Order: sequence, then structure tokens, then C-alpha cells
Amino acid sequence: MTAVSDEQIRKAVDEEMLRRLASPEDKEVEQLDAWWRAGNYLTIGQIYLQGNPLLREPLAPQHIKPRLLGHWGTSPGLSLIYAHVSRLIRHTGQQAIYLAGPGHGGPALVAAGYLEGTYSEIYPHVSQDEAGMLRLFRQFSSPGGIPSHVSVTTPGSIHEGGELGYVLVHAFGAVMDNPDLLAVAVVGDGEAETGPLEGSWKGVSFLNPERDGAVLPILHLNGAKIAGPTVLSRKDPAEVRRLLEGHGYEVLEVEGSDLPGMHHRFAATLAGAWGRIRAIQHLARTGGWDGSRPRWPLIVLRSPKGWTGPEQVDGVRMAGTWRSHQVPLSGVRDNPEHLAILESWLRSYRPEELFDSTGAPTELVRGLAPEGDLRMSASLHANGGLLTRDLVLPDFRDYAVEVPRPARTRAESTRRLGELLRDVYRDNPDSFRLFCPDETNSNRLGAVFEVSDRAFAERVTADDVAISRDGRVMEVLSEHNCHGWLEGYTLTGRHGMFATYEAFAMVSASQTVQHGKWLQEASRLPWRAKVPSLNVLLTSTAWRNDHNGFSHQGPGLIQVVLTQRGDVARVYLPPDANCLLSVADHCLRSRSYINLIVIDKQPQLQWLSIDQAAEHCARGAGVWDWAGTDDGTSDPDIVLACAGDVVTMETVAAAQILKERLPGFKVRVVNVVDLMTLMRPKDHPHGMSGTLFTELFTDTVDVVFAFHGYPGAIHQLVHGRPDADRFRVRGFIEEGTTTTPFDMTVRNRASRYHLVMDAINNAKRLPRGAADLMAWCERKLAEHQAYVVEHLEDMPEVRDWALGE
Amino acid sequence: MTAVSDEQIRKAVDEEMLRRLASPEDKEVEQLDAWWRAGNYLTIGQIYLQGNPLLREPLAPQHIKPRLLGHWGTSPGLSLIYAHVSRLIRHTGQQAIYLAGPGHGGPALVAAGYLEGTYSEIYPHVSQDEAGMLRLFRQFSSPGGIPSHVSVTTPGSIHEGGELGYVLVHAFGAVMDNPDLLAVAVVGDGEAETGPLEGSWKGVSFLNPERDGAVLPILHLNGAKIAGPTVLSRKDPAEVRRLLEGHGYEVLEVEGSDLPGMHHRFAATLAGAWGRIRAIQHLARTGGWDGSRPRWPLIVLRSPKGWTGPEQVDGVRMAGTWRSHQVPLSGVRDNPEHLAILESWLRSYRPEELFDSTGAPTELVRGLAPEGDLRMSASLHANGGLLTRDLVLPDFRDYAVEVPRPARTRAESTRRLGELLRDVYRDNPDSFRLFCPDETNSNRLGAVFEVSDRAFAERVTADDVAISRDGRVMEVLSEHNCHGWLEGYTLTGRHGMFATYEAFAMVSASQTVQHGKWLQEASRLPWRAKVPSLNVLLTSTAWRNDHNGFSHQGPGLIQVVLTQRGDVARVYLPPDANCLLSVADHCLRSRSYINLIVIDKQPQLQWLSIDQAAEHCARGAGVWDWAGTDDGTSDPDIVLACAGDVVTMETVAAAQILKERLPGFKVRVVNVVDLMTLMRPKDHPHGMSGTLFTELFTDTVDVVFAFHGYPGAIHQLVHGRPDADRFRVRGFIEEGTTTTPFDMTVRNRASRYHLVMDAINNAKRLPRGAADLMAWCERKLAEHQAYVVEHLEDMPEVRDWALGE
Repeated sequence: MTAVSDEQIRKAVDEEMLRRLASPEDKEVEQLDAWWRAGNYLTIGQIYLQGNPLLREPLAPQHIKPRLLGHWGTSPGLSLIYAHVSRLIRHTGQQAIYLAGPGHGGPALVAAGYLEGTYSEIYPHVSQDEAGMLRLFRQFSSPGGIPSHVSVTTPGSIHEGGELGYVLVHAFGAVMDNPDLLAVAVVGDGEAETGPLEGSWKGVSFLNPERDGAVLPILHLNGAKIAGPTVLSRKDPAEVRRLLEGHGYEVLEVEGSDLPGMHHRFAATLAGAWGRIRAIQHLARTGGWDGSRPRWPLIVLRSPKGWTGPEQVDGVRMAGTWRSHQVPLSGVRDNPEHLAILESWLRSYRPEELFDSTGAPTELVRGLAPEGDLRMSASLHANGGLLTRDLVLPDFRDYAVEVPRPARTRAESTRRLGELLRDVYRDNPDSFRLFCPDETNSNRLGAVFEVSDRAFAERVTADDVAISRDGRVMEVLSEHNCHGWLEGYTLTGRHGMFATYEAFAMVSASQTVQHGKWLQEASRLPWRAKVPSLNVLLTSTAWRNDHNGFSHQGPGLIQVVLTQRGDVARVYLPPDANCLLSVADHCLRSRSYINLIVIDKQPQLQWLSIDQAAEHCARGAGVWDWAGTDDGTSDPDIVLACAGDVVTMETVAAAQILKERLPGFKVRVVNVVDLMTLMRPKDHPHGMSGTLFTELFTDTVDVVFAFHGYPGAIHQLVHGRPDADRFRVRGFIEEGTTTTPFDMTVRNRASRYHLVMDAINNAKRLPRGAADLMAWCERKLAEHQAYVVEHLEDMPEVRDWALGE
Repeated sequence: MTAVSDEQIRKAVDEEMLRRLASPEDKEVEQLDAWWRAGNYLTIGQIYLQGNPLLREPLAPQHIKPRLLGHWGTSPGLSLIYAHVSRLIRHTGQQAIYLAGPGHGGPALVAAGYLEGTYSEIYPHVSQDEAGMLRLFRQFSSPGGIPSHVSVTTPGSIHEGGELGYVLVHAFGAVMDNPDLLAVAVVGDGEAETGPLEGSWKGVSFLNPERDGAVLPILHLNGAKIAGPTVLSRKDPAEVRRLLEGHGYEVLEVEGSDLPGMHHRFAATLAGAWGRIRAIQHLARTGGWDGSRPRWPLIVLRSPKGWTGPEQVDGVRMAGTWRSHQVPLSGVRDNPEHLAILESWLRSYRPEELFDSTGAPTELVRGLAPEGDLRMSASLHANGGLLTRDLVLPDFRDYAVEVPRPARTRAESTRRLGELLRDVYRDNPDSFRLFCPDETNSNRLGAVFEVSDRAFAERVTADDVAISRDGRVMEVLSEHNCHGWLEGYTLTGRHGMFATYEAFAMVSASQTVQHGKWLQEASRLPWRAKVPSLNVLLTSTAWRNDHNGFSHQGPGLIQVVLTQRGDVARVYLPPDANCLLSVADHCLRSRSYINLIVIDKQPQLQWLSIDQAAEHCARGAGVWDWAGTDDGTSDPDIVLACAGDVVTMETVAAAQILKERLPGFKVRVVNVVDLMTLMRPKDHPHGMSGTLFTELFTDTVDVVFAFHGYPGAIHQLVHGRPDADRFRVRGFIEEGTTTTPFDMTVRNRASRYHLVMDAINNAKRLPRGAADLMAWCERKLAEHQAYVVEHLEDMPEVRDWALGE
């Protein structure tokens, strides 16, 4: 699609309304400017003041905070945009949320929420009066207060302003299946240097104007980051334009610092952008769309860093340079000249026009602000739990694998999940999406394509399969996009799952960490309603990356999730298809967790019937009587525990070997699905009681634990349990290569033979025949080793044997 | 800089030579095509054949591997490029390395190394004859063999073809300070969707044509990834061109599948690109450069996926579609029709022309290949250890903080390191670089700017400080670029350090993992010489992100590095400046490790003189006699251990409290700098002996361990040590916010008072006065809590008190 024409805009939007929007009257400019000045004033107050908030008396050193923190440089730009978008909302009734990529401009967004009244509604002690304003100032970047950047505590935000790079992925995720929403996403020119941000412009290549809302990116070029210039700000503007046009946007530009000129030009540009968005949507929603990717508008705003701040300090240029990034005046308490500059700076905004005698914003300031839920700081979309509806979920039992007896059936477990997800798609046509880097089919989840194509807004050809502009399965070869889109989607109240190769989940590990931190923090804010969980399915696991080898063998994300607090962290290792179904059902119903589910996609032995699986998963861990030789009347000789599909198979095999070859030796097999049950109840809400732990693991018998991930994970989980030293863990110890699945277990010393030897070595009672069995195991391993070496050249033949199944 | 002119090219390069390069004679085209056919033949052989490698007999089912693995689709393009770059080298003597972004095209690169003879030199059993060729085929993607993608085992590669997104960062890192090197970096259109790749085009904005070599990106658009189209391949070509021009490149395009036309066009285009590169370098190196950023050339190659492969299989289009991505014919063993297609496909390359009677490549094939080190598979730059020289290092003692007695001096420890790094820069003007996302000054390493600016190829203005085209300090707001550039820099034999905020080290955690895997794998390949270590300095740590709060508080990278094997993983937690200097000196001398160093940048108490520090760090862990009350004659009542700067301070304070308030109670203080000493020697080469462990920690006395990171890390490290259950670990438990440093220790229950209470609770012997001291500690904490609550509004004042120092 070429850019929309004026004619198309006129058909979509009331012409007179758009004209008024584009050309604010003098009164409106005055209101815009007042709002903007108020935002800037409150921003500076948060950075500097601990007294005299309304400047009712001359500014004195004791009014200044002892330690000056915060970021001024980006804030005036953020406030200007906020003011203008608010006016747009007021004129048009557009539902909008605001995402501040330069989130360190936190005081600007906090100021906006305060001016809109939302802040006081949520935090009544920060009232719209002089005392409240002082609290607003003092809490900022102070102990017990709020951080210096946009955070979970900021009303209207779904985007933490700490780790940079995700403003566009969050915005695109928010508008998917959200046709009436406009996400205004401000991209800072520092953030624009990050890989995740650069990789996220292409969100438009996956957006459907008929069914999805719109993202309006505003690239805010103010020239510098902490200590130097940014790449985009120093490139030829024509080059920047080409870059953004290359990403598929129609680029609208506003530049300058003149007033009121900038108000007029930004209003006109914003109106132009909005008109284009509405025209694109109108075409798509009234049958006038040719199906090609729309050329969505994007605004480049060039304004000085620290705009309206001091031009010079101590003879050095300040506004417009990197020196404005944080605190432009550093010596205010001790340097009378700096104090005077600060006072005249603050007074330049004429606070007496902005706040009335009580300290509340005046009518002039509030004149253009929207009301109720239309205020961006009060948008329900930014507190998505309020909009969350339960998914319509089929009965997971309907997708069960028939398992009359353990270890008789083989199945690709994730394929069953795919069938369940297909029906979740079908029954929730606007509130569920699967996000996956190009691997939906590879991960055996392809059944979803029976009811939904992949989403793709670029050209589709006859050779393509299951891909169209109307698709809702999200495939992009970028874990960052997948993860971030899902975050935006769930934070605005919808449900989803991110499925990816286990090893490459580390690509977006920092997003998992930061989203977990968001959920942890949100759980302590009563006004933040719970949102759908972030469900992460890891498949194509370490143990079954036979031909890909070492670089694809890494179960590291488990360690990462384990570091998070118990109120959000959940890790599940279903051993088979029916357990996976039960776990997935639970996760899709849950709220505000990070649910990590790990299971491989290859055909694997099935252990439990669906009813057994449901019961087993509800408990999270349990004894598999049928696998062991423990009669339950007394402590066994050894406990063989396992968590994870491949190691469960090895454990059951080891128990079988012991059963056959060491009669009288009592083996108990424990399978753990919910890893967090191993923790103490005081450390995690899923932690099993001491009594139950003892029932499973005894207090004194040694436990040989075969674990899917790095062994250290289990050591840290069982710490504090009775005699934790007795847990001998086998797991992935970074011994990987291109080899057979069975050889993987041998290399990592987690094979059935290793487990048998561990059992014998650690049993308190050494039964007759133990030494023979040890020797047998060593022989089996030596044979395996010899076979591997000898048959290096005939490797394909070794596979079946080495599978050892 | 605008694109270079023909005139400028003529001045830089011999005109006749360039003409010949651009216009291959018929004989050369024949040679090029023969090389290419041989590469394709060997690629297909690797995927399909386990017998009859030279097709000396009709193809039969038993010649076909039982399991078909590998990626055909991208391989012909990779081989074509390889052939043409080889010819370029032969004509020009250009030193070049080849980085395959679509690294799953592994068989193509393996084939290239085999055709060049390098493969047989390194792996003699894979000889250049029929038997060797059969081994080449059988080892591919087979157990005990090589993975299906480009990997550490592939000669000539510094780039693993597993996790996508880093081909350009590796290429740019490789050419920094490497003026004679050309890095040919093939970017796949799947990889081009990843964030890290999209964020890495801007490498040219940091490249200096005078001092650095050149990167020639070749964007290989063949239309599809695993199961569907890619964004770039389906955009309007004009839009792709705009995008790449927007990044700053001059775009040269080649498209088609006609032969020999494609050979002629690609040769001409490659010659054009090379001429431009040489012209840019010539200008810069002979004083003709205006200093602006050059417009470096880039090639877009559009060729069909699976080019030269079967056009149709089972009535479905194959070549040119996503169906060619992996194995185009799946049923070869059982389906005679497929077998026939495969045979005619293989024979279409006329193997009898390509390999002689012994199976060695014919003269026709080898005619254009370069020789010796100029072969890309044998480039010394791609086995950088061979080129590595030791750094010229100053005596780290020269930067010491004067510490006459412990805990009397405060210093910003990283500032001393900055001074050392300054002199490393000075003394190693072409083999050391610091990489940091915009935080060199913030991290107190700014002394480096006394001898080197930041590197920046875009426009610089009068307000900029310490930034120029000649700078060699690498600042870009992208952890991915910083990390990846350093990887490329060290893999080609030079030294460096990546310094970043602790929390945001998780952004590039997957790179740390993958580079660690590279080093682990390389350590088992004798032909790979050791390279400089990847030194990662984490500062601005969790405990001192006072105003940034929770999103900036995350010591997670320690957990990640701990999962790697002992042959590469190193984690250091120097408690003060002098220890930091000693650790840094050690790391800068080391080879092929991941060295993680964690220390905060804020002013902190200093404990050890430089000599004490050197001795302490050499041991890795030791008793701090002066801090405790342990006389060494018998076991103490408690061991207080610590690792990390802030928690060391709390531990020393706790010991002091116990000393003063509980006379007779014997406390031993142990500080750990080298975290790996805690492991058993069998688990890590730094692991201390059982005897030493007992000397420090006893066998039975409880240990209260205050740790910088997540407590679980210590639990997993001490597993297997005598009675590991007795280790009670305090650390970061995800309790963070905007608060004072002391309050951070309180919230995470790691304050001096918590440690004192832990000591009392876990001591075997309860001395008189213990109950009183417990009550005193509880009172102190209650007072702190009351103070925090009461003074919420006056937070700035709480700071000094709450610091508790």
C-alpha cells in the first residue's frame, strides 16, 4: 500500500474535526502550553525540591534535596507529546495508551498522571494540593519512594523504563486484537541503538488494520544519551528518513524549539498521523483495502535535549547537549548562582498560572485533558487485568493420549498440546495468540494452523502455506519480538504462549527477568489487577538436539526463572503428553505468573493416563509405585527421583534394571513435575510440607536425582530440607555434541547405567549381587563407548542401538 | 561521505587488475562454476550419502543415510559466494575471512574447507580421496561427528551457526585494528529478522577506514526460513534498498539464477564492492579523507532457495520455496522416484569433472582457490590464538589504594581500574579495547579517555567530549554490539573488556553462554590455539542501585556463568580496589576463559593493602584474621563468610559487633574472591582441596555466608563439601526498590544485624549475652524499620543514618 491519500483521509474522518485538530486555536495553544509547562515544572520539582513546592517563597538551599537524581533531558519532549496526544483524545475520543521508551524520563510521566488526577486516585496521600505536591516531589528517587524511571508504580504504564529496547514490541503486542486502541510509543534515540528496538520496527509487517489497533511510533531525536551523541541524531536526516521508510513507514517530521510554533507544527503533524491511521483502518474495515501492507505513519520529533532548561551553566552549553541528560545544575545547595538559575528556570513556567491557591492544577492546565478512562494514565488497557476475561478452555482430557499401561505408547507430546491450542484459538478468536520464532510446526504445534494462519502483512505467494494477513499465529525469527509482543498482549489483558527452542530461550532471558520483576512489583500494588501469566514453552530440548549439537544444548532458562520470587516463578517439567496437557490447562487459567514449561517434541514414552496425570500434576510430585520396588512399609534402600522427560525415562529404566537384577533391593521412584514443590513452603507457595517431603524422599535415605537441567538447580532447591547433602544430582553438565539421545545421557553421566551405579554407591544397605551389577553397568558403558569409537564411521547404524530403548 | 567515485577507485586500485576481476574470462567462469558445483555436490553428499561418494556405481538405497539431516536451501548461495571471494583473493592477495550468518548451511562451509585442503590438514582421516570423502559425508550430523551448522570444528570460522544474529558484530569486531583484513559477512534473510542483527548494521558508524579493516556484508535473500517467507524477501526491493541505505551503505544488487550470467554479474559486483572498499581505505590512509563516515558497499544477493536443486518433487514446487530449507527429498531410501531424482541431481554437477580417480579435487576445481594462509578456511585471523601477543601490562601495584589499615579508606574501586586500563590502552595501541554501553564514565572508568576518545564515525560537534573518528573506546547503547564486537576482537587474537551495568548484563547473557560454549568446544580441539579471554566487568550492582530501584537490581549473570564448564568459567568478586586490580591483571593475562568480575562503582571501604590483596587473590579465598576473633588454635564458634563488596562490609561489621558485644565468642571471617574455589577440585580446576576447605570452613562449624548474588549459587557451589547443609546463605532475594544501600541489605536479610542473629542462631555454643545481643539486633532492625516508615516523606535525611556505616 502506498501512503494514504488526502481523499482517503477525508472519507474516513470528519473533515472539519480533522481541520480543527490540525490547527489549534490560540486558546488551545495556551492550554497546551500550560499543560506542558505544568509537566515540566513538576518534573523539575521532583528532581530538585524537598520544600517550597509552589515557590510561594524565594528558593533557598534548604528547599533543595541533598542528593539530586533523575533525568531532565528527555522529559520536556515526553511531556509535550503527552499534552498533544491528550488533546487529540479530547477531540476524537480515541482510546490511547502512552509508552515511554526513554523511560528514565519518569518524572514527566509521573507528572502527567498527577496532572490528570489519576495519581491521587491511586495514591491518595499524593493529593492534588500543596502537601500532595510536596510528597510527589519527595518520593521521587528517594528511599521508600519511586524509582527515577517509569515503572510499575506509574499509572498508565505497561512499560518499565529500565532496560531499554522494548517500547515498540510492547506497543505492538498491546494493539493486537485491540482494534480501537492507539498505542503512542515514544522511541528515544539512545534506545534506538539497541538491537531489540532496531529489530522491532518491523511490527508493521505483522499488523492487520482490520482487526488490530495501531501503533504510532514517535522517534524522539534529541541528540544525546548519557555522555555523548547518538547514531540516529548525527546521521543525515535524509538517511534517517530512508531508514524508517525502509522499515515501511510514512515519515512525518517536526523539528525545532520555537514557541508557539512547535505547538502548531506538532499538532498539525499529529493530526496528520492520526488521520492516516484512521484512513488505513477505515479502508480495511469497510472493504476498501487491497490487502497490501499499509504504510503506517511515524513521527520524527527533533527537539533539544533539556528543552526549556538552562541554556548555559558555568559557561558551558547545557540545553541541547548531553549535559542535560540527567541533572543540569549539580551544585544548587552550595552554589548561589546555581540556585538562582534554578529559581528563574522554575519561575519561567509561571507556576502561579498553573496551580491554584490550594496547589491544584488550574482550569487552564486541565482544559485539554481527557476525562475518566480516556486519560492515558487511567486507561484500562494499561491495567489490563481489569479487562481480562477467562479463556474459554476445552477439557484438556479430550486431547489425552491413551495410556493403558506405562511405557507402552510413544507420542510426540507437544502435538497433543498443539491440538488443544488449536481449539483455544478457535474458541477465543480475539484473546489468545501463540508466539513462536518460526518453529510452530517444528515444535509440533502445527495443529493451530487448522484454524488460524500465521500473521503476515507483507506479500504472500502461491507457494506459501498457512500464512496470510488474517492469520493470528505470530511467527517472526526474533525471540525478542515474540517475547515482547506476548508481554504487551498479556499486560493489556489477553492470553498467550511463547514457544521456543530451549537453548535459544536465553536470547530473551533478560525479558523474562524484567517481566518477572514487573509482575513481582505489581503483586504488591493493590490497584494493579492481575493479568494473564506469561506462559513460556521450551521444547527442542538439550537432550534431543541430536544433530544440532552443543550450541543447541542449554537448559539455562530454568536457572534464570528460579532466581525470581515465589509469587511469580513457576517451573514445570511434565514427563509426558498427558501431564503436559494438565500443566498447560493450569497455566492458561493462571494469572500474573511466569510459567516455564519444559518438554521435548520428539516421540517419547508415555507414562500416565490422563486421570493419573491430572492427579500427579495437581500434587506436583509423587511416588510412581509401578516403577519401583518399594512396598511403602518402610524406607526404601534408595530413592530415584527425576524431573524432565528424558531423565524420567532413564530413571524408570534404571529402576527396572534394579528390579530385575537386584531382587530385594528396595527402590522408590519419585517424579517431580512442579519443580517448586521441592522448595520449603516458606520459600515458595508451592513448596511441599516437611511431612510430604519426608513421605516422598524420607529423611535419611540417599536420593539419586536425575534432572533435566543443570544439577545445581536441584541443590539450591532442596537446601534446607532434611540432610540435603544426600541428594546426588545427575543432570546436564555441558557435555554435548552431535550424538544419539542415549549417548547424550552417557556423556552427561545421567544414563540408566549411571543411575544404577549411583543407586548402589549411595544405598545404605549393599545387597547381594550389587558388585556384579556395578560391573555389568560398567561393562555396558564400556561397550557403548567402544561401539561409539569403533563405529564412528558408521554412525547412522549406532543410533538404534545407542538409543538403548 | 558520499559513495566513492570511479575516479577514486582508479586511484586506489590497479585499473587493469580490477577490470580483470570484474570480467572473468571463460576459463575462469568454468573454474568458478566447477568449484561451485563441487561445493554443492559435497553439500548434498553430506546430507544424503553414506556410500558410493563419487557415484562410481548407480545410486542405491543402501548408499543413503537412514536419517536425513541438514540444510540444503541456503548452501548453494554460500558456496557461490565462497568461490567468488576465493577468486578475489587469488587476484588481489586480499586477506579475508568468511562469516556465514546462515550457519545452518554448515555443509557448504565444511565442503569449502575440504576443497581447500584445510580440512584434511586438520583432520587427516578426512583425506582428499574417496575414503576421506566418505568420512566427510558420514560424519556430518551424525553421532560422534559434526553438527549440521558451522561450528567450532569448522576451519576458518569464528562464528557458530547456531544462535542467529551475531554475524555482523563478529565481523566488525574482527576487523577493528585489523587494517588489512576483509570480513565477508553473509547475512541470511531469516537471521536479518533478529534484533541483534538488525541492531548491528550500524557497525559502520563506529569503523575507521584508516586503522580498521573492512566488513563486506552480503545480504543473501533467498526468500524463506524454515516454514515460511521472510520479511526482507517479501518487501518491495526498493524498500529494502532504502533500509540499507538508511543504515549508511551503498547497496549493490545481484539477482537471478541464470548461468553463467550469475557468475559474471556476481564477479562484477564483488569487484565493484572491493574496489570501493580499497578506495575508501586508500583515501583514509593517504590523507584524502574528509573525515566523514564512508558509504561502505554492501551486496544484496537474491538467488533461489535451494538453487540448482530439484525444481519439483511429488508435484510440489521445491527450489525457490521454503520447502528447500532443509532436506528436499525425504523418502529417498524407500521411494525409487526420489532416489532417481537425487541421483540425477547429484550427477547434474558432473562429479567426474570435479574429482579425479583418487577422489581428490581436480585442477579445474582448485584453479581459482588461493593457497596457504590466504585460503579463508586456513586464515590465521580465524584461529586468532595463533596471532595473539601478550598485552604489555603495567604493574598493577602502581595503581594501588594506600590501605595502611583495613576499613579506614574509602575509594571508588573501579576508578583505579580505569587508570590501569588507561595505561593498557596507551601501551597496546592496536590490540586492546574497552567495550561499554555508554557508561564508561558512569562506571568510573573514564581515565581511558585521557589516551583514547570514544570511536564514532558519524558527525561530531563542538559540544562533544572525548569522541572522534580516531577514538578506540567502544561505546554504543547496545550490549549485543559490545559483547559481540569483543567476541570478534578476541577470536581474532586481540584483548579487551566488556564493562556494563550488572542487571543489564542479562541482555547479552545468551551471547555469554554461546561464547562460553565456543571456548569449551575449542578447548578440545588441538588445532584451535587459545585466544584472549572474554573479560566481563559488572558494576553498578544490585546493592547500589539506590535510585534506579528494582529493575536495575539483578545479579543473574553469575548464575549463568556458573552453569558453564570449569575449563572456561571464572567468577571473581573482589571486595575492594586492590583486589580488583589484582584480579584484572590476572584476567588480562589469561586465555580462553569467560572471566566475570563483579564490583560496584560507588565509594566503598578498602580492606587490603596491595600486597595483601595480591596474596589473597592468588589464593582466591582466605581467613581475614584481623576481622575475626578466631585464634586459629581450635574451631571457631561460627564462620562468617562473604563474597562481594557490600556483603563483605556487612560481614566485617557483623564480626565487629560480635567482637564488641559477645566477648569470648569465636568468629572466623572468610572472604572469597574467586568463587570457583568453593567447588571441589574434581568439578573445577580452581576448586580448593578438601584440606584447605576444612582449614577455612572447618568440617562441622556452621557457616553464615553473605553473598553478593542469589543465595542458591552458593548452595550449588558447596554441594559435596563436608556437611554442606551447614552453609546458611544470605544474598539477594529479589527484595529491591528505590532505597538506601543499607536498607537494601535489610530488605534482603543480609544486613550486619541479620548476620549477627544468624551467627548466634547457628553457633553450636551459645555464649552468655547471646540472647541480649539477639534482642539488640532485633531492636536495631525495628528502629530502622520505624525510621524508614516514619521518615518516608523526609527520605533524603534517612540516607546517612541508614547507610549505617
